[in-house]
Amino acid sequence: MARWQEGAAGRLQAAALRLYAERGYEQTTVADIASEAGVTARTFFRHYADKREVLFAGSERLRDGMLAALEAAPATATPMEAVAAALDASTVFLGRDHEHSRLRMSVIFANAELLERELIKMASIAAAMAEGLRRRGVPARDASLAAETGTVVLRVAFEQWVAGPPDGSLPDLMRATLVRLTEVTAAR
Amino acid sequence: MARWQEGAAGRLQAAALRLYAERGYEQTTVADIASEAGVTARTFFRHYADKREVLFAGSERLRDGMLAALEAAPATATPMEAVAAALDASTVFLGRDHEHSRLRMSVIFANAELLERELIKMASIAAAMAEGLRRRGVPARDASLAAETGTVVLRVAFEQWVAGPPDGSLPDLMRATLVRLTEVTAAR
Repeated sequence: MARWQEGAAGRLQAAALRLYAERGYEQTTVADIASEAGVTARTFFRHYADKREVLFAGSERLRDGMLAALEAAPATATPMEAVAAALDASTVFLGRDHEHSRLRMSVIFANAELLERELIKMASIAAAMAEGLRRRGVPARDASLAAETGTVVLRVAFEQWVAGPPDGSLPDLMRATLVRLTEVTAAR
Repeated sequence: MARWQEGAAGRLQAAALRLYAERGYEQTTVADIASEAGVTARTFFRHYADKREVLFAGSERLRDGMLAALEAAPATATPMEAVAAALDASTVFLGRDHEHSRLRMSVIFANAELLERELIKMASIAAAMAEGLRRRGVPARDASLAAETGTVVLRVAFEQWVAGPPDGSLPDLMRATLVRLTEVTAAR
């Protein structure tokens, strides 16, 4: 089973998700998670700052991977083409384990504090992409519009993938959602 | 001067913004705000739950006003046309006092907790519009795409208006940004 992290970090992540989904996030302690993963609490804190961070450990890698793809897009690419490259790159991180993603989203949607943290994560990805576009010479307003609508596509496609069958293709959904965005915004 | 609220509520709001901008949000107490507005702390708490809520008092009215406009759009309106009507309606609430808005945004951008609250407010507006569109018979994915990109347009236009001259027109900027969104998303 492909996890976000290998070794103890991966076992802790899987154990945390299992317990959050079964007992609820608030009702689960770091000691519970460590015990479920067969390690000590000290080991937990070597990998994660607190029980919330277990759910957001991949955020920086996701953002950096998307930004690298955006920066690697050809100089002739339009802002949305550069964003599309970032969205494609995101699926490498987001699309690797359907069951993990489904559990994670069910935990996050059940807790207002976690949902806020997820919103902040998406806003930070949008801000990083907008800055990356501006560095490519895209005017500020276009950069914000392309980057922010890109994260809208990411979220809508990801939620659809998570709600769908385990063998659905996230890259396909991401591209289809981007096409659909163009159609929806053009119809006015 | 057109404020969000009249009477003591309006005086408290103006006093709070002034103090937050001068001393910083963290350094300002409810007692300071009440004293600056010439009322008691008890009067403050009759109008606002805490010092954070002073900055977000208009949120429900903004959301309800936008939703009412979206629902009032002709049955033949496309999703983006209904969202455009909601954006037009938002300018009645958001565009009435440039200096107030400028101060408010400077306070919010200086404080991570307030920025989170602002993100949550925008997410709740997007969710309400998506639900409104679904009630109009728009498929779930299109409803999310139209509603979420609508709040992107709102935010980008509003920030541009706030950063611009005091006599700029928010409705004009809102419409121009919506047109620009269509161009940016189509260029791929």
